[in-house]
Amino acid sequence: MIRFESDYLEGALPEVMRALNETNLVQTPGYGEDEYCAAAAAKIREKCAAPGSAVHFLIGGTQVNFTFIAAALRPHQAAIAAASGHIAVHESGSVEATGHKVVALPCGVDGKISAAQVRECVEAHWADSTHEHQPQPKLVYISQPTENGTIYSLAELEALSAVCREKGLIFFVDGARLGTALVCPGADASLADLARLADAFYIGGTKLGALFGEALVITNPALNRDFRYIEKQRGGMLAKGRLLGVQFGALMTGGLYERTARREVELAWRLRRAFEEKGWPLYCDSPTNQQFPIAPDAALEKLAEKYSFSDWARIDETHRAVRFCTSWATKEEDVSALIKDIRAL
Amino acid sequence: MIRFESDYLEGALPEVMRALNETNLVQTPGYGEDEYCAAAAAKIREKCAAPGSAVHFLIGGTQVNFTFIAAALRPHQAAIAAASGHIAVHESGSVEATGHKVVALPCGVDGKISAAQVRECVEAHWADSTHEHQPQPKLVYISQPTENGTIYSLAELEALSAVCREKGLIFFVDGARLGTALVCPGADASLADLARLADAFYIGGTKLGALFGEALVITNPALNRDFRYIEKQRGGMLAKGRLLGVQFGALMTGGLYERTARREVELAWRLRRAFEEKGWPLYCDSPTNQQFPIAPDAALEKLAEKYSFSDWARIDETHRAVRFCTSWATKEEDVSALIKDIRAL
Amino acid sequence: MIRFESDYLEGALPEVMRALNETNLVQTPGYGEDEYCAAAAAKIREKCAAPGSAVHFLIGGTQVNFTFIAAALRPHQAAIAAASGHIAVHESGSVEATGHKVVALPCGVDGKISAAQVRECVEAHWADSTHEHQPQPKLVYISQPTENGTIYSLAELEALSAVCREKGLIFFVDGARLGTALVCPGADASLADLARLADAFYIGGTKLGALFGEALVITNPALNRDFRYIEKQRGGMLAKGRLLGVQFGALMTGGLYERTARREVELAWRLRRAFEEKGWPLYCDSPTNQQFPIAPDAALEKLAEKYSFSDWARIDETHRAVRFCTSWATKEEDVSALIKDIRAL
Amino acid sequence: MIRFESDYLEGALPEVMRALNETNLVQTPGYGEDEYCAAAAAKIREKCAAPGSAVHFLIGGTQVNFTFIAAALRPHQAAIAAASGHIAVHESGSVEATGHKVVALPCGVDGKISAAQVRECVEAHWADSTHEHQPQPKLVYISQPTENGTIYSLAELEALSAVCREKGLIFFVDGARLGTALVCPGADASLADLARLADAFYIGGTKLGALFGEALVITNPALNRDFRYIEKQRGGMLAKGRLLGVQFGALMTGGLYERTARREVELAWRLRRAFEEKGWPLYCDSPTNQQFPIAPDAALEKLAEKYSFSDWARIDETHRAVRFCTSWATKEEDVSALIKDIRAL
Repeated sequence: MIRFESDYLEGALPEVMRALNETNLVQTPGYGEDEYCAAAAAKIREKCAAPGSAVHFLIGGTQVNFTFIAAALRPHQAAIAAASGHIAVHESGSVEATGHKVVALPCGVDGKISAAQVRECVEAHWADSTHEHQPQPKLVYISQPTENGTIYSLAELEALSAVCREKGLIFFVDGARLGTALVCPGADASLADLARLADAFYIGGTKLGALFGEALVITNPALNRDFRYIEKQRGGMLAKGRLLGVQFGALMTGGLYERTARREVELAWRLRRAFEEKGWPLYCDSPTNQQFPIAPDAALEKLAEKYSFSDWARIDETHRAVRFCTSWATKEEDVSALIKDIRAL
Repeated sequence: MIRFESDYLEGALPEVMRALNETNLVQTPGYGEDEYCAAAAAKIREKCAAPGSAVHFLIGGTQVNFTFIAAALRPHQAAIAAASGHIAVHESGSVEATGHKVVALPCGVDGKISAAQVRECVEAHWADSTHEHQPQPKLVYISQPTENGTIYSLAELEALSAVCREKGLIFFVDGARLGTALVCPGADASLADLARLADAFYIGGTKLGALFGEALVITNPALNRDFRYIEKQRGGMLAKGRLLGVQFGALMTGGLYERTARREVELAWRLRRAFEEKGWPLYCDSPTNQQFPIAPDAALEKLAEKYSFSDWARIDETHRAVRFCTSWATKEEDVSALIKDIRAL
Repeated sequence: MIRFESDYLEGALPEVMRALNETNLVQTPGYGEDEYCAAAAAKIREKCAAPGSAVHFLIGGTQVNFTFIAAALRPHQAAIAAASGHIAVHESGSVEATGHKVVALPCGVDGKISAAQVRECVEAHWADSTHEHQPQPKLVYISQPTENGTIYSLAELEALSAVCREKGLIFFVDGARLGTALVCPGADASLADLARLADAFYIGGTKLGALFGEALVITNPALNRDFRYIEKQRGGMLAKGRLLGVQFGALMTGGLYERTARREVELAWRLRRAFEEKGWPLYCDSPTNQQFPIAPDAALEKLAEKYSFSDWARIDETHRAVRFCTSWATKEEDVSALIKDIRAL
Repeated sequence: MIRFESDYLEGALPEVMRALNETNLVQTPGYGEDEYCAAAAAKIREKCAAPGSAVHFLIGGTQVNFTFIAAALRPHQAAIAAASGHIAVHESGSVEATGHKVVALPCGVDGKISAAQVRECVEAHWADSTHEHQPQPKLVYISQPTENGTIYSLAELEALSAVCREKGLIFFVDGARLGTALVCPGADASLADLARLADAFYIGGTKLGALFGEALVITNPALNRDFRYIEKQRGGMLAKGRLLGVQFGALMTGGLYERTARREVELAWRLRRAFEEKGWPLYCDSPTNQQFPIAPDAALEKLAEKYSFSDWARIDETHRAVRFCTSWATKEEDVSALIKDIRAL
């Protein structure tokens, strides 16, 4: 079986493994207070052109999301997210488990929410004479790229950031696959833009070549206060924190992170072109490493004998949308084989 | 600087790194539903002689503790722990953050609580006519070995288990350094004993040769129900769960886990004998890989120029107790050098 | 100003005040363990033909809702509610503050959800291979009558109950204005039906003639276990619990509760007929004490000089739906005056 | 049976009942946004000489405690309390249920903690290099009077307030029986002192002549931000909030509150003198409406045939400490009868 169902099916990039192997016997203090973490954080701050920001390394994406949200909100405040956003549908109610409602805004297949929607939601709250009887919207959560692989343009991010600042909202960006949004066709928002526009965001490692780990960048100093307490309290502080520093140190050196993302995206676009050539419409217009063709069930069943992919949405009685993911480990020959098999269907 | 301040200062055992390296490119499903996890779980069940138990791999000890406790208790129920227990003092209130009080029972420097104390606490609760105005004690948490390196004897564990069963309490054992308690001088409780006596316990990897990871064994099937939801919700479910399976697979093969623990303990006893020879009393009688000599401040300052260790307790104006830890990575020559330097003081 | 904006604008029925005055100096134990509470509970059990059920008196509706839900669910479980349900929109995220997601099902202006919707939601959850990454739907919350004054028929309640039992869900009914649903035109579900069909429900006092207080009836004994701990923990246990027993004792004697509800409904229907006569369509078909005419803004502004009512929904640029409520204290002459003024518009 | 076991055994003062009866049919807006609440709040602000403070009326003491603490703390912060403090032992873990640890400081039978203890606790936290692994002490909770009826002197309150301000802690005073601490022998701290020294405190009504209700005074404006959301979220916002305004309006008029407290205290001191005359030592030196004689079991059994009181602590095999409470409703003749019966023992 050749697997395309997600981008966390293998271990880590050779460069990452090498760094872990080489530093294996070095002794360092625990809990992220080591030189590897300090060095990786410095590189990230530099890449983000955000010298004053704080960088914390956590183990997984769900954990970053609920830990940051729990740290940022008071008990009566809520996070706004797209109805298909990860915190709204795929984290087992982890944000609610910290006591906060996720206010789901309707979104299309692109999985995006707009500044206008945020404005309307917040203004409706404050205009309601019984707003104290409702959770107070206080934080805007988006993913870049989204669950469906689409990306926010710089203009969209600017607009979201502007409405957040105007309304006193916290702007938080989930970057589980952030690298792909930085390098894909049409990408026009850089890490420095994100650092400038968001109060916090994370650079995902798990899905971009690390064994595991995410780098949370908090650019708003008020939101960084005592963060490490809450990181520890919620289980996100690794005893051997240096493992995260070592990995991000490797990823952030010599353009490895971007190069890895670029390769993932290029392989994904090869698939995309094959789908289009085959006449399979795309469920959504993802420029990143996830591609969502709508195909006949019969064709998909045939492919499934040799390849794994994820079911995404039923379209009609004989067609469904599925997801193919590429990763840092996807082999060119596997992509070529898949394309050949699609053509042959 | 030669470091003895804790046992999570390095990476992982060569066998563990090798297993990670060798499996790095293998594709597996995510979230612990892979063959490596299944195989490692099977080995653990066999070692524990507990074929019906469930095994879950989580990332860290704090996380196992609060996740299991949150899954096991209803909102009004509390965990009983020693006043110096890890959940009572070193986890940033993580159990309280899930809504539950930790009822701290007094304990001596051995960090242990007794079956009699548990009985008294629970009987006092139910005898009080206003017990509904107090959290209901429902779970007993101990560490084996304790924070201070001491161990519960089999008889003590039997007694704790018996009172828990009699009173309808859940018995949970934190095994962050469990291996050392299995092999140290005086050890008489096996993994199979733990599995027979506790409702759940975990076998720590982070402090015994893994890069990271703990194996939670739930022997009481009622407490395993829907556990994976809560594991995900609390951030404990790793996307590349196979990393944990691969590591525990290595640790549980060919006696590596016990051999590692035995080596840690032997090196620690070399230190212990050096402390005794020097006339430094021991703060507590730890037979495991943590040793706590009481020494003159001046001597410790001298040692601190070359070695790191942890401050533990002030004894009088010129003496304090400190902790020296050995780990899988501690070098024999470093132990020898330290002993030589102690003798020369 | 003559007020119709809600049904909690005055104190309590004369019979309730009389009972409070007459018992004022009697000494009783605290926390609801008194004879007044016991007697009122017995009357409620009898009325409900549910001799084995438990009755708890709490102070307010929001409190009953989140306290029961917190007591009933495990951490990963969610409550299903209509998108316009009270717990979904008007309780400041109180259910989320206990850690649970409220899964909002779409509903029309009648504010109702159907057994088919519940079935679909639950089956979709379990059919999803990643269901462990989503909150588990476990409890169905409805209001009888709904936020918009409509009622569930006996057949609808039977169907909801049946799907809950089939799927292992808890069925909970918010009865803040329950009396009106028992006596209004078209009502065909009795208290005994509710007790038979739901796992728990509450009989609202605050909006039906009591000063304050709600009677929670738990018919499923498994859900009553240790409930008083959680009631105390969440602030719902009144020190002078007898005040609730005294009030419900009065309400449940001689048909006072139903008589009060009937009067509220009759006055509301006088208004309803006046709206219809005037040609004002009804926003929703409420047979209870809340009526929702759609009227021209100009007419409403005129009425607002003399009467208070609540804005409910904007219909078009010159029309909006508003809410008129009657209560136990609404005066006949005030209703007559309002009708006369409507006719004169 | 003549009851002395607590001070919440009866309804309310005649003046309070009269106010409720007289205003029963007046229509007001709900949720505390009525003129009765506004007027009562104004009186309280005036009495406290705290014109800028916010006053919120909640239903019960446990609720005020956990609601204020939940509103005031971030997730990693803890409340400091005496080991015998109400939040530490008699509220079913309600503070923990909002996610926060209660750090219990040792205290004697007077139930008090000192500024020095608070200072030591906080300094020890910050001096610990692993303080991020522990809950951060951030709020000091005391009761005035304490659980055991003792009172803090003005000097003690000044010292607590000073250490709180120096260390950035929130100072919160539970005043369930506050009136008695204002008027008892030895009392030297006024309402204005409390308002000046504490960040928030509450004036208890339930135990001082109201049917129910507590007036929370928040003098620190930063802690009042959005408080009403959290009050609603935690079930503390009464639909007919005016009931609380009406009651506190009566209590705060013409010195009724203080007069009631004074009468309670005077009757308690009559009992105290009878205990002393009898040679029964006092368990603690309470100058307020709770008295704790240590008496022979046989004598107490004899008294228990006619009077109720609370068991408090076993002293030796034949003696125990018990609690006698007086309330606004305690009859002089009942006190006289009790004293006569004690003398006759």
